[in-house]
Amino acid sequence: MAFSAIIPSHKTSSVIKISTEDPVKFTPFSQIKVVPGKIQASQIANSSLPRAFVSKDWMSNSDPLPAFNLDEYMVDKGQRVNKALIKAVPLKHPMQIHEAMRYSLLAGGKRVRPILCIAACELVGGEETLAMPVACAVEMIHTMSLIHDDLPCMDNDNLRRGKPTNHKVFGEETAILAGDALLSLAFEHVASKTTKNISPDRVVRAIAELGSAVGSEGLVGGQIVDLASEGKEISLNELEYIHLHKTAKLLEASVVCGAIIGGGNDGDVVRVRNYARSIGLLFQVVDDILDVTKSSEELGKTAGKDLVSNKATYPKLIGLDKAKKFAGELMTQAVEELAHFDPARAAPLFHLAKFICDRDN
Amino acid sequence: MAFSAIIPSHKTSSVIKISTEDPVKFTPFSQIKVVPGKIQASQIANSSLPRAFVSKDWMSNSDPLPAFNLDEYMVDKGQRVNKALIKAVPLKHPMQIHEAMRYSLLAGGKRVRPILCIAACELVGGEETLAMPVACAVEMIHTMSLIHDDLPCMDNDNLRRGKPTNHKVFGEETAILAGDALLSLAFEHVASKTTKNISPDRVVRAIAELGSAVGSEGLVGGQIVDLASEGKEISLNELEYIHLHKTAKLLEASVVCGAIIGGGNDGDVVRVRNYARSIGLLFQVVDDILDVTKSSEELGKTAGKDLVSNKATYPKLIGLDKAKKFAGELMTQAVEELAHFDPARAAPLFHLAKFICDRDN
Repeated sequence: MAFSAIIPSHKTSSVIKISTEDPVKFTPFSQIKVVPGKIQASQIANSSLPRAFVSKDWMSNSDPLPAFNLDEYMVDKGQRVNKALIKAVPLKHPMQIHEAMRYSLLAGGKRVRPILCIAACELVGGEETLAMPVACAVEMIHTMSLIHDDLPCMDNDNLRRGKPTNHKVFGEETAILAGDALLSLAFEHVASKTTKNISPDRVVRAIAELGSAVGSEGLVGGQIVDLASEGKEISLNELEYIHLHKTAKLLEASVVCGAIIGGGNDGDVVRVRNYARSIGLLFQVVDDILDVTKSSEELGKTAGKDLVSNKATYPKLIGLDKAKKFAGELMTQAVEELAHFDPARAAPLFHLAKFICDRDN
Repeated sequence: MAFSAIIPSHKTSSVIKISTEDPVKFTPFSQIKVVPGKIQASQIANSSLPRAFVSKDWMSNSDPLPAFNLDEYMVDKGQRVNKALIKAVPLKHPMQIHEAMRYSLLAGGKRVRPILCIAACELVGGEETLAMPVACAVEMIHTMSLIHDDLPCMDNDNLRRGKPTNHKVFGEETAILAGDALLSLAFEHVASKTTKNISPDRVVRAIAELGSAVGSEGLVGGQIVDLASEGKEISLNELEYIHLHKTAKLLEASVVCGAIIGGGNDGDVVRVRNYARSIGLLFQVVDDILDVTKSSEELGKTAGKDLVSNKATYPKLIGLDKAKKFAGELMTQAVEELAHFDPARAAPLFHLAKFICDRDN
């Protein structure tokens, strides 16, 4: 399941209980200790001592924050991202390639990555407009990965977001080229469209970050290990490698680039990087848990299909209880990383993490 | 025919007579008027007045230049580029993707683009080491385009440089991913490996230039128009669009990036850009002329195959005489652009252009 489809509603899940009674109140972030480093599932799997689980306790005594509506926030930001994307890829000669690029780039989706990028920029005090070029770039990269992953020689998918996949409409050769063009445009767009008010040193750092997110140690690395692991028994470390590279890496680049362009310091960048790694894995763990705990009706897709396909999942490799515990730890870690920042500015990233954790499908 | 195979020998061609009796002497560049703008074949085709043809006249009264051996220069620079490429893509986990990337990247070839990049850097007074990261990047991009162009849904080639194509060895999915990884690594490499002595503003400009060379208005644009024109009658403008985008654009980015990183000013960049456009088209025009004027033995490949396949060529569209005249004009233009620079520093780019023009096969 693509990460891009995670924000359909705000129902409270029974899978991992971390909600407060009032979802718009939480502990002032300054009271939460920042724990550097990344939680690994293997720590959970090998630990006989239960680690502190996310509970109401550390969210008690909370000061009220301004009301925050994630749905409204996502729709509002998403609309401005869409406008910027339409402008970034105008329909011009040669028409066929621009039509193919736009077909997939403008096919909807929640724009999670660009919104994370903008939210991270605003988290460190930058304005939305500063981050918009790099926000568009991460969406271009994400779209490229979807177009190429859908190809017959890869996942061989005919549908994406309810529409025929790019190669089904434009042919394989155009689909491959549209992906290539989107990938190169991503870098060109950041380099040529980021406002000159940003130090070019920060632009260069953002481009290096973006590149590392895509390449052989990023999306591509995750996809190649995933393809190689099909039908094989894989270890927990291999599973985590795949998720960290296929899913978390681009989320990480999104917030890191947002923080860099927004003027964040090295500490800010480390914190948003850890936040993104946590929510990237969290998404996958929750996905795996939902597959074995929910009905097909509740999920809106076939439940238990991971079991049927003998796919490596967290519940399969470490058991359902430890998978739930791991999800809780990841949520704690994600929120703790935000504790350093101004609570109002951190609210979007907090609520995004919370939604990923709480979702029902 | 790939542009990368153009430097096998230095025989003087009978196709286009521009050679002086002493090939290491030519007019001091300062005496040659720089003509801004690009020569188009349509100007030649529509003109009833013969334009000034490259002849011995404007190369007379030449001061001797230091002897220059293009073969030695290419081998020397090529070896250092190869070392840098090996270092840029080490063999590491996940092994399969790095093996696939290295298989095509390190498969030989003359390294024309990176050498052009370095030559342009040195032309404006920069040192080779400054340009090496961006020189490697243009070779990564070139390799990506070869891997993707060879795929079954594109040109469906089984051999490249005498070896099985990437997808024949690693499979289509890995070949596509290896191309994607090389493309993103190109940008990451420039951003992360260019020495901090270079102003980051120049690095950003080089990255924007590289991106524009690949995307929908670069290599990809040329490839999509080329694929769409297969088996169709195309105009001179369409033929030129394909060549300028499939071949000239990356040559252009190579020298432009070299000049930017080397510290060139805006005028330098315009001149090397025009030089590259001229030699990019020149290569194609000479290729077309050789196909109809040489025997298969002389070419080392099947002569007349463009005629048999009814492929659009310059001789077909404007006639052999005007094609030769156009080649001469392009060579003049290329050399004139170099006239602004120090002759010794410009020697590599001059001799590269001259070789492209003079070659026999």
